[in-house]
Amino acid sequence: MTHPIDDIPRDLARRFAGRDIISPREFEKEEILFLLDTAKRFEHFREPILAGRILAALFFEPSTRTRLSFESAMQRLGGRVLGFAEKGVSSVAKGESLRDTIRVVEAYCDAIVIRHPLEGAARVAAEATDRPVINGGDGANQHPTQTLLDLYTIREEKGRLDDLRIGFLGDLKYGRAVHSLVETLAHFRVEITLISPESLRLPDQLKEQLVQQKISFREETEILPAARDLDILYTTRIQKERFPDPLDYERVKSVYQVDRSLIGEVGEELTIMHPLPRVTEINPNLDDYPRAAYFRQAANGVTVRKALLALVLGGIE
Amino acid sequence: MTHPIDDIPRDLARRFAGRDIISPREFEKEEILFLLDTAKRFEHFREPILAGRILAALFFEPSTRTRLSFESAMQRLGGRVLGFAEKGVSSVAKGESLRDTIRVVEAYCDAIVIRHPLEGAARVAAEATDRPVINGGDGANQHPTQTLLDLYTIREEKGRLDDLRIGFLGDLKYGRAVHSLVETLAHFRVEITLISPESLRLPDQLKEQLVQQKISFREETEILPAARDLDILYTTRIQKERFPDPLDYERVKSVYQVDRSLIGEVGEELTIMHPLPRVTEINPNLDDYPRAAYFRQAANGVTVRKALLALVLGGIE
Amino acid sequence: MTHPIDDIPRDLARRFAGRDIISPREFEKEEILFLLDTAKRFEHFREPILAGRILAALFFEPSTRTRLSFESAMQRLGGRVLGFAEKGVSSVAKGESLRDTIRVVEAYCDAIVIRHPLEGAARVAAEATDRPVINGGDGANQHPTQTLLDLYTIREEKGRLDDLRIGFLGDLKYGRAVHSLVETLAHFRVEITLISPESLRLPDQLKEQLVQQKISFREETEILPAARDLDILYTTRIQKERFPDPLDYERVKSVYQVDRSLIGEVGEELTIMHPLPRVTEINPNLDDYPRAAYFRQAANGVTVRKALLALVLGGIE
Repeated sequence: MTHPIDDIPRDLARRFAGRDIISPREFEKEEILFLLDTAKRFEHFREPILAGRILAALFFEPSTRTRLSFESAMQRLGGRVLGFAEKGVSSVAKGESLRDTIRVVEAYCDAIVIRHPLEGAARVAAEATDRPVINGGDGANQHPTQTLLDLYTIREEKGRLDDLRIGFLGDLKYGRAVHSLVETLAHFRVEITLISPESLRLPDQLKEQLVQQKISFREETEILPAARDLDILYTTRIQKERFPDPLDYERVKSVYQVDRSLIGEVGEELTIMHPLPRVTEINPNLDDYPRAAYFRQAANGVTVRKALLALVLGGIE
Repeated sequence: MTHPIDDIPRDLARRFAGRDIISPREFEKEEILFLLDTAKRFEHFREPILAGRILAALFFEPSTRTRLSFESAMQRLGGRVLGFAEKGVSSVAKGESLRDTIRVVEAYCDAIVIRHPLEGAARVAAEATDRPVINGGDGANQHPTQTLLDLYTIREEKGRLDDLRIGFLGDLKYGRAVHSLVETLAHFRVEITLISPESLRLPDQLKEQLVQQKISFREETEILPAARDLDILYTTRIQKERFPDPLDYERVKSVYQVDRSLIGEVGEELTIMHPLPRVTEINPNLDDYPRAAYFRQAANGVTVRKALLALVLGGIE
Repeated sequence: MTHPIDDIPRDLARRFAGRDIISPREFEKEEILFLLDTAKRFEHFREPILAGRILAALFFEPSTRTRLSFESAMQRLGGRVLGFAEKGVSSVAKGESLRDTIRVVEAYCDAIVIRHPLEGAARVAAEATDRPVINGGDGANQHPTQTLLDLYTIREEKGRLDDLRIGFLGDLKYGRAVHSLVETLAHFRVEITLISPESLRLPDQLKEQLVQQKISFREETEILPAARDLDILYTTRIQKERFPDPLDYERVKSVYQVDRSLIGEVGEELTIMHPLPRVTEINPNLDDYPRAAYFRQAANGVTVRKALLALVLGGIE
């Protein structure tokens, strides 16, 4: 029997065996496309190619979605998972350093996924061990598998990564998913529209980077008419804590809610994405809209993580 | 080799493939008997017929017993489990709706068991997904696998489900296990005795139902002499929180404790059941009494859940 | 193919099938050596000889290290794990007795590992069930797998268990790992040096035992010059809570820190062990010192537990 994974290019696969996955910045364009192609092959793949392998999932802050998605990916390929879902039950509560935790845990597993509230924690972990470390989100910094699943979703929904007009809506200042995706889209021919309140604009540093990379972008404060010119609207959660004045939050919350009436205004071609969980940013009346892609986007997380775990653990040789 | 599960009637088995298990009310009598017969075949069965399948266990309130019982059942058949043991580590803490959680989690698994503090939550979950959903207890409402394991235990201990005199003791007002079991016993020829303090009587609605279904029942406030006429005494935990006056609780607690001396009064035919955990309702001096069935009852939970998971996940085709 | 476990002596192996592992005191010298020899065979062994078996891990207090180490050991041999990582999510919160919890959980599993804050809890658990129970630490009492991995580490690092001069440093009053190891070393020809502040001396009862067993020991308060005569220095964590006066703690903490300069004083033969987690007792500048054995010691925990689980679950027959 021929497996859908049989003809994965081995030279590129070998680049990922044992590799740390800390930031999408470390991927060349060729590697990104390879990861997305490989993920496509894993979409319906469920064979136990990682039987006997153990992933340690170290979640120093809770993230059910990311944790369960990695766990499902590992289990779908026959592997095992151990670890903790929150800091409270780890030795860190006794004052242990992250480096020590990693050096102990490496003996329990073949790879580590780490989620940590502090920027740079994943890098520290990767330097402490020879086991491959996957960053499952480190503070406001990076979350490479989120970026990969976002790119995968864009290609699945639109059939391409070039010649797209992509809007980002909501909290562009603190949204880690947005930052990573914007940076990575610089590999492709895209036009970017940044829609946010003044107080939640994309950081200057990232905008300067877009200028240097010759990525066309503009900033808006209102959804309309901006959304009329878009292929994709990537919506994000706006957190109440970001606003000193609760009234400002209430105003922004209602203005930036995406719903069926918006689609009535802009037409049925606009694809809606969201990293989830959502609160009020997307009205549930949009869930049946054929181009509401956010639940498919969440499901793509398992697909992308299956491919990445298989590669990193040397399951494809 | 012939498997003990080979000659399970396939027409009935097919009715359960992919089916939601929300309330025992939805089972026809024929289906209940089929489930108990199937469970019997799974009693010592440990083959990996669910290898590669994933059960998501979403426990929005802790219930170690139910969670571990489902986990054991799934693992005994070679399947995997992922999920969370309490609400704190789920995305619900970020304000996500139950419907959204289910639509995301469905991508991680093949079936879902949900425990939730709110009545109706399991139904909401089932409507949000095409994956089979098993209700692991939703507030004061239903807990179908508890009812099945109770019925299974009665049949194992007494050899029959008809022509039995069954007493229920303790908190009959709030006890979900009692409500579901009483309702389901209406399929069989039983006489029911309800023993409780006035303040914890079975709800009127349930009593009216018994009248309509022509189930003979009577109400008592003292264990004796009522227990002399019983085949089974189903004891339940009385929670302190139900009593505005702590003294009332203390009185009820001591009056309703079942112990070895009670057996001395009523004879060695009386079977004692309890959904566990117990606190003071059953004196540990009763644990060696041959018809103290409560630990076997707990063990039957794994047996019944193995059968149900195999059926719902299409492991028997 | 010949397995490295094929020629394990079956008569000794049979002594451990189904056996409770509560205290290292219960091991004869011959059994200890057998366990260490068997562990050595399991060092790189990863075959699924425990497929279909379930270990219940009941952690009534958190201990990430012990829990994950057992979990890794079980998974490396193809077995499964279920349980809880802290008391909060167990039925104990509802007032259930330990005995009841065990009698229910035995139906879910083939063996139980229990961690409990109270001395004697593991024994109570073992008496409640026919399933083998492994003590994963019960209060200040015993932690047999820690003792086994310590002995295993000593033999791996030094090539022998006899003719060794072993120092214990730090909190010798409350340190459970130290107590168990000291007692067990009485089977071998060792000289023991006990280095601690006056207030944290080894309990008199243990010292009397050493006298009876004719084990040579001496007590010191300073690391130097004592450490010059040692083959191994076993360092332990000193907990702030042990000191009524915080200043005393600060003084002890700085005096008892082991670092590179100590090795400069005593020479490159001294092996450093620590049960981990460490806080300040060992300076990270020692981590690259070839005889800093503490991370290898932690890794040996998986090796020893693989052997023990295989034996207790009858995986070697």
